[in-house]
Amino acid sequence: MNEYPSKTLQEAVEAIGSLPGVGSRSALRLALHLLRQPGENIHHFAAAVDALADKVHYCKVCNMISDSDTCLICSDDKRDRNTICVVESVRDVMSIEATGQYHGVYHVLGGIISPINGIGPGDLSIDRLVERLQESITPAEVILALSGDVEGETTSFYIYRKIAGLAGKISTLARGLGFGDDLEYADSLTLGRSIVNRQEFRPR
Amino acid sequence: MNEYPSKTLQEAVEAIGSLPGVGSRSALRLALHLLRQPGENIHHFAAAVDALADKVHYCKVCNMISDSDTCLICSDDKRDRNTICVVESVRDVMSIEATGQYHGVYHVLGGIISPINGIGPGDLSIDRLVERLQESITPAEVILALSGDVEGETTSFYIYRKIAGLAGKISTLARGLGFGDDLEYADSLTLGRSIVNRQEFRPR
Repeated sequence: MNEYPSKTLQEAVEAIGSLPGVGSRSALRLALHLLRQPGENIHHFAAAVDALADKVHYCKVCNMISDSDTCLICSDDKRDRNTICVVESVRDVMSIEATGQYHGVYHVLGGIISPINGIGPGDLSIDRLVERLQESITPAEVILALSGDVEGETTSFYIYRKIAGLAGKISTLARGLGFGDDLEYADSLTLGRSIVNRQEFRPR
Repeated sequence: MNEYPSKTLQEAVEAIGSLPGVGSRSALRLALHLLRQPGENIHHFAAAVDALADKVHYCKVCNMISDSDTCLICSDDKRDRNTICVVESVRDVMSIEATGQYHGVYHVLGGIISPINGIGPGDLSIDRLVERLQESITPAEVILALSGDVEGETTSFYIYRKIAGLAGKISTLARGLGFGDDLEYADSLTLGRSIVNRQEFRPR
């Protein structure tokens, strides 16, 4: 007998085990869990995942995932189309949306410049951002909301050079101590920047 | 905008998040990972999982999962059919098979008696085990390879009473310190049983 009692099980375990962070033991556990479910539940699960292949569109304006050609944010008249927040991924949009503090639109790059991973500027939707700014009637504010590591900074700088003459204003996220953070446990880079970029104290 | 930018994404995240041990954040991460794959990979993943619903059979002899009516172990002439190892689940069979030390056949209960989870003897394949022993020509040895906790012990005892007159011999797994275990870190129940059930020292 080979390791798996059933080729069908083996294929399911291998498929599940191909997901990032799911080891072969977890994959087996999950496959056996699914196997114990009623057939209709398994079909439902498979169909929900299968739909990702064909039913998800990308917004033609901002590259966000969507169920139609234009995403819910770009088609929302209440959003300020003159403020464009540039993010790496769909998750970043969801994180910012969850704050409820942002009312502009987005531009999803679909990644970040990373020579080590073979991702260059041409793999991202940077040209589309340039076109978008060229098409806009009044110069928009562009917020570069990328991560603060080397790859994020490199990408921000690359985009900055590309759009410098096209955007009305180019800003980036405020960085510093998190609310509730203890000075004692803050890393010195963050704490240092928090001091340099200190803001006027405004009692509420 | 609701929390998800796409209903398709939301349904996939909810399906993946219904798996045990997969939280909503992990489910989103996995769904977005799948979304970044080529469509054919997503179809392959979904089809492999979908097949669990229809293509997996249960062995009519031992209740093990299989691709046909009789599992690979029960249809293997080299296995000793007069030794039946009773286990809770498919995973236990795979664990024992991985040791390469067992050459008999199995009987998969499909669970364990657990009043708290509403699982009674009727939900398990115990009657089928009784029939199997009644049908056998020479009385078989039955190994009760269930866990050592209260539910496992209860199930073992229940089966023991059911098959006492039908089996040639009823045994259970040896329990004690694991090979390589340190006395210092062993739990006292295990260490105590290891002393009571000590075995003759046989130098190799």
